[in-house]
Amino acid sequence: MRRTLFTEDHEAFRGLVRDFVAKEIAPYYSDWEHAGRTPRSVFEMLGAIGVFGIAIPEEYGGAGQRDYRYNVVLQEEAARALVTMSTVRTQLDVIHPYFLEYADSEQRARWFPGLAAGTLLTAIAMTEPGTGSDLAGIRTTAVRDGDHYVLNGAKTFITGGLLADLVIVVARTSKDPDNRRAGLTLLVVEDGMPGFTRGRVLDKMGNKVQDTVELAFDDVRVPVANRLGQEGAAFGYLGHNLSQERLTVAVGSVAQARAALDATIAYVKERKAFGTPVASFQNTKFELAAVAAEIEAAQTMLDRAVVELVDGELSSADAAKTKLFCTEVQARAVDRCLQLFGGYGYMMEYPIARLFTDARVARIYGGTSEVMKVIIAKSLGL
Amino acid sequence: MRRTLFTEDHEAFRGLVRDFVAKEIAPYYSDWEHAGRTPRSVFEMLGAIGVFGIAIPEEYGGAGQRDYRYNVVLQEEAARALVTMSTVRTQLDVIHPYFLEYADSEQRARWFPGLAAGTLLTAIAMTEPGTGSDLAGIRTTAVRDGDHYVLNGAKTFITGGLLADLVIVVARTSKDPDNRRAGLTLLVVEDGMPGFTRGRVLDKMGNKVQDTVELAFDDVRVPVANRLGQEGAAFGYLGHNLSQERLTVAVGSVAQARAALDATIAYVKERKAFGTPVASFQNTKFELAAVAAEIEAAQTMLDRAVVELVDGELSSADAAKTKLFCTEVQARAVDRCLQLFGGYGYMMEYPIARLFTDARVARIYGGTSEVMKVIIAKSLGL
Amino acid sequence: MRRTLFTEDHEAFRGLVRDFVAKEIAPYYSDWEHAGRTPRSVFEMLGAIGVFGIAIPEEYGGAGQRDYRYNVVLQEEAARALVTMSTVRTQLDVIHPYFLEYADSEQRARWFPGLAAGTLLTAIAMTEPGTGSDLAGIRTTAVRDGDHYVLNGAKTFITGGLLADLVIVVARTSKDPDNRRAGLTLLVVEDGMPGFTRGRVLDKMGNKVQDTVELAFDDVRVPVANRLGQEGAAFGYLGHNLSQERLTVAVGSVAQARAALDATIAYVKERKAFGTPVASFQNTKFELAAVAAEIEAAQTMLDRAVVELVDGELSSADAAKTKLFCTEVQARAVDRCLQLFGGYGYMMEYPIARLFTDARVARIYGGTSEVMKVIIAKSLGL
Amino acid sequence: MRRTLFTEDHEAFRGLVRDFVAKEIAPYYSDWEHAGRTPRSVFEMLGAIGVFGIAIPEEYGGAGQRDYRYNVVLQEEAARALVTMSTVRTQLDVIHPYFLEYADSEQRARWFPGLAAGTLLTAIAMTEPGTGSDLAGIRTTAVRDGDHYVLNGAKTFITGGLLADLVIVVARTSKDPDNRRAGLTLLVVEDGMPGFTRGRVLDKMGNKVQDTVELAFDDVRVPVANRLGQEGAAFGYLGHNLSQERLTVAVGSVAQARAALDATIAYVKERKAFGTPVASFQNTKFELAAVAAEIEAAQTMLDRAVVELVDGELSSADAAKTKLFCTEVQARAVDRCLQLFGGYGYMMEYPIARLFTDARVARIYGGTSEVMKVIIAKSLGL
Repeated sequence: MRRTLFTEDHEAFRGLVRDFVAKEIAPYYSDWEHAGRTPRSVFEMLGAIGVFGIAIPEEYGGAGQRDYRYNVVLQEEAARALVTMSTVRTQLDVIHPYFLEYADSEQRARWFPGLAAGTLLTAIAMTEPGTGSDLAGIRTTAVRDGDHYVLNGAKTFITGGLLADLVIVVARTSKDPDNRRAGLTLLVVEDGMPGFTRGRVLDKMGNKVQDTVELAFDDVRVPVANRLGQEGAAFGYLGHNLSQERLTVAVGSVAQARAALDATIAYVKERKAFGTPVASFQNTKFELAAVAAEIEAAQTMLDRAVVELVDGELSSADAAKTKLFCTEVQARAVDRCLQLFGGYGYMMEYPIARLFTDARVARIYGGTSEVMKVIIAKSLGL
Repeated sequence: MRRTLFTEDHEAFRGLVRDFVAKEIAPYYSDWEHAGRTPRSVFEMLGAIGVFGIAIPEEYGGAGQRDYRYNVVLQEEAARALVTMSTVRTQLDVIHPYFLEYADSEQRARWFPGLAAGTLLTAIAMTEPGTGSDLAGIRTTAVRDGDHYVLNGAKTFITGGLLADLVIVVARTSKDPDNRRAGLTLLVVEDGMPGFTRGRVLDKMGNKVQDTVELAFDDVRVPVANRLGQEGAAFGYLGHNLSQERLTVAVGSVAQARAALDATIAYVKERKAFGTPVASFQNTKFELAAVAAEIEAAQTMLDRAVVELVDGELSSADAAKTKLFCTEVQARAVDRCLQLFGGYGYMMEYPIARLFTDARVARIYGGTSEVMKVIIAKSLGL
Repeated sequence: MRRTLFTEDHEAFRGLVRDFVAKEIAPYYSDWEHAGRTPRSVFEMLGAIGVFGIAIPEEYGGAGQRDYRYNVVLQEEAARALVTMSTVRTQLDVIHPYFLEYADSEQRARWFPGLAAGTLLTAIAMTEPGTGSDLAGIRTTAVRDGDHYVLNGAKTFITGGLLADLVIVVARTSKDPDNRRAGLTLLVVEDGMPGFTRGRVLDKMGNKVQDTVELAFDDVRVPVANRLGQEGAAFGYLGHNLSQERLTVAVGSVAQARAALDATIAYVKERKAFGTPVASFQNTKFELAAVAAEIEAAQTMLDRAVVELVDGELSSADAAKTKLFCTEVQARAVDRCLQLFGGYGYMMEYPIARLFTDARVARIYGGTSEVMKVIIAKSLGL
Repeated sequence: MRRTLFTEDHEAFRGLVRDFVAKEIAPYYSDWEHAGRTPRSVFEMLGAIGVFGIAIPEEYGGAGQRDYRYNVVLQEEAARALVTMSTVRTQLDVIHPYFLEYADSEQRARWFPGLAAGTLLTAIAMTEPGTGSDLAGIRTTAVRDGDHYVLNGAKTFITGGLLADLVIVVARTSKDPDNRRAGLTLLVVEDGMPGFTRGRVLDKMGNKVQDTVELAFDDVRVPVANRLGQEGAAFGYLGHNLSQERLTVAVGSVAQARAALDATIAYVKERKAFGTPVASFQNTKFELAAVAAEIEAAQTMLDRAVVELVDGELSSADAAKTKLFCTEVQARAVDRCLQLFGGYGYMMEYPIARLFTDARVARIYGGTSEVMKVIIAKSLGL
């Protein structure tokens, strides 16, 4: 159905991104996958054309557009070219908002120009080995010592951690056993700080252009001036951006499901089996029709959620429903599409194989499907 | 998520319908189910409060509002009270449009006041034994004889056929074997015409308040003045309203799925198993959360489709996607909800059992899921 | 695949049953459905040909064959003819075993001849309004008064309760709050005992030939001689036969799923849509192939479980897995098959509609799918 | 349930294999995955302990046991250790049978000792770029020239093609356009024959220890003495072993699904989320219970099919049902299990990630699920 959420400005941005992806990403994507990371130069180019600074205030070199629809366009255009820009999206959709919301004026002056330019790359370090996404279980500690915090601990599953110049670390600054939530604080660790080391790059099933690493902090002295927001306030901060983080996953899921459908339609029209095009089998038609109907449902739901997010109205339960549903649609879509490729679907040179392995994490990160159900059930009074 | 398609007028109408359903339908519904039909008086009351005439021009006693959103409200309020008004919806959503589009001025004068008043009940007779919904296979014939057509044939699965004062019959007026579509014509058969008989009332799995009958036409002389539209033009006419007919099924599916969810939430909170409320089991929470997410997706998709229908923009492929998806969501929802009722879910005195048996036809009538997939696949170029 | 569990004796019995079903059940089945019960005479005829007494010792007029495979044959032959004998199966598979295991010699002499002859019909009254299948919550009480128990309480969902001459009632004989399980006792209430009344017949979604009723006990004086087994031992007794009760449901599910498949294959070969047989569509072929594969899996699993039951080796977890899986296969099978009937699938005159509504209870009674999962999970150490 | 298909001999073999896997495979498996192949020495060791020669006649150094149950044991023990021996299974289950059935006495003397010793590695080259598994479309040609065939063509998706000493090539020896099946012949191409080259190793989603390559034949002169069986008879030969090839996939699927379940049970017991073990959540229990029930169904179905295969009774339809069902169970099982690992499930260092990516091909190779449905539907008379 006709989508109604984009304006001419978004469409102009779409054109810009489409060209960039075609010229600077798609041709090199396979190399980055094998390397397991995206080169720094790409982020700088994205900074140069204004993508990284879209939400950064104009005074720091950005466009001052805190409009999530630009982020949507970005993911859609990547998926359309059968690539992802997951390290970009993590920074723009998940990490920049913390800086935008909680940086004080000194920090804004110090970091925003680099964020807008794509020269200051970022990561957020929340998850720890063994505790998963349970904030109450965080064991990384930051102890105040004069105008520094002394940081100790280990983090894992850190997206973009390899290249990050600034890492927002969630650390425990209070040990009050009665309120494990109240003791969390955000500290910005900078590349090169003594005691800050990057561990091994994790070997993921998919999302190969995005590095995911372990980080270690051994008596890292972080200046108090690098604290983002108030001491002890991180729990609230982390909850504040959750709806957008979840939509971000859903946006990727729908865009990639649609890319899978399009790629499959093209394939079955050209490919023959037993002398006739695969597209001519009723099973092929019905499978793709079913997939198309689900994607249409996911797209309308998602577009509505995006509008609510932009309007500041999106409830956490609706964000959870949208993530749950859209990621499940993606999972079903990529599985059914891949099947129609036969043996070629299992070969990584066919994008459908990558779309399949990329997809599996969508029901997990940004909050698992189970966590989404917990949130939804609460909203139903259960 | 917040729904944006209704205006204050629709909401005022909603209040009216809600009261009516509570007072005049819900208390007697179970009786009608056992009787297998809805009494005439109900239609007259609905005429009196303006429901039947909502789309009929004002000069004939209607409100002149050809706005499908009123029809949506009607089904939603019925479902909310755990009833259906399927014979009403068939008349308003499916049959009245033929009169509104194709009746000439004489016919308008003759029939519209009764349609608006709910005193002239209607049915449409399309399906024949053995040919199903394949219009090309229609064998009922109408042979011109002066200013009459002589009508012969048999029809089945006729919703509301028992009470209908006017039956729009799809008949073959030409036997050109090369163009079986071109020979179809709509004739309005009136109650009492010699040779027109009603056969047995079919015993359906659900939808019990709605009679479904067989009709027979044995040399029925139908005046040419009772022809709706042009001779030989019925195939086009029948296709014209299809998107609305399909949305109508989807509207019912989403509204009833929502009703099932609400009823189940209420039940599991109150009902105990092994000493604790059923609502406290994680399985209960997760099942209902999953159902709620799917219903939200269906609702946003449907609402968008309704807006497109009202704007005259809804494509047949999008109507097909919406019907396919919403009826499948309903099927999954009622099945999962019923399961949470345990043995009570199998007892017809619990509305969930009725919602379950009512639901099974939604993937069949108004075009089966398979037909929807054929339409969608075509739109994908397959 | 070739089934290996039956001997020539079972096949001879199969022939006997097949003839009986064809002559004495199938022609009248629809009448019984409308009446909501099966006439007494049918049970007597089944007694006369030896079906009711198959497991009753020869000295009381039975055949002394405690071999569950005869019960399997019985259900299979009923399903093959598109009927069920659910009141018979409940008596033979669920209730007779209590008599066979726990009746003392006086009771055997008093009741076994009638059980074998099909003249003493039976029911078991376990479930109570509001407590479901949670034995620990039973509130019906039996207070010892000399050589009688005075019985008070209400039961619901009692299969065959309308015709039962003997009702095994699970009652609480001890109020020890610390051990709510220890206080349960089985008492046999006889038709005509003062204070024993039968309430309304419940209106079920399907299984219409089987009456399901509420029973009430108001100061019913039950002789101690009517106690089955030891006082306070019922909890153990009830658990003892559970695996067979669950297999019984699975046997019906597989047999009826197979009947649905066969009926659908026959239908799609004969029925045309858009000028070609429904059987010729690839979707039809693939749907039925998928159904057939699942039924084959269910059948092999079930046959293996039956052999283990007969050998006394079947664990409760394996019985639970078998019930869970076979009833889910049935649910998917009848839904997919019905869809291929189009509108006719919604008409009760087509057996597929009855197979669909009959099937819905299989995931509920004999222990819900959720209870099966609890049992299985325990066996996995979870 | 208790499995009944294995004898003491099979169990003794199981012990042997289990030890070997633990000592010689599991510790090095990850290295082989990264290398994309299994080293030759492994095959030789497997030859030395008798695994490669199990079905080879004793006179050639084998054990002469053409009993498929040994092959089952092999896959089960690999899966139990969370590895696969897919290049071994392809040789033993799929390729050796061609040699065993069709080699003449000279060929037996020439090749069988090496096959038994694991020193002559084999592959079969059937699929061609663009034609998939449609034998009628094969374009590789072999033209008789004296006592040689001159072979030209290209093959793809060749399992084990990198190491193979002997490659059975399916080539067209007749161009009769009326009978494209009749012209196929099996030729054994040997390593080193001029004109025989191995192309690139394909990058698969999973099954990484097994190399899959492209092969090219450019005027390769193959002696007539290297023809396996009769000229023009290959179509029949290829069909003859299909049931076993399909079971082989099913055996792997069930064994790996079970391995996934076991690994997940272990993980959820140890892993905590929000302070409690993941195993304690009802959702975890119910998911794993559902998976366990399906695996039990698949196992009983498969074991029955294996017995029928061993007895020479397995129909192609039953082989197809078994492959279809078991591979679908595997797909659902690995997906549900992986989900319970959360983010760790996406990391290749956790075996569940490998089990997931390995599994995706099972519904494709050895005949896709769609091909299985075609076969099943035919057996239903559709």
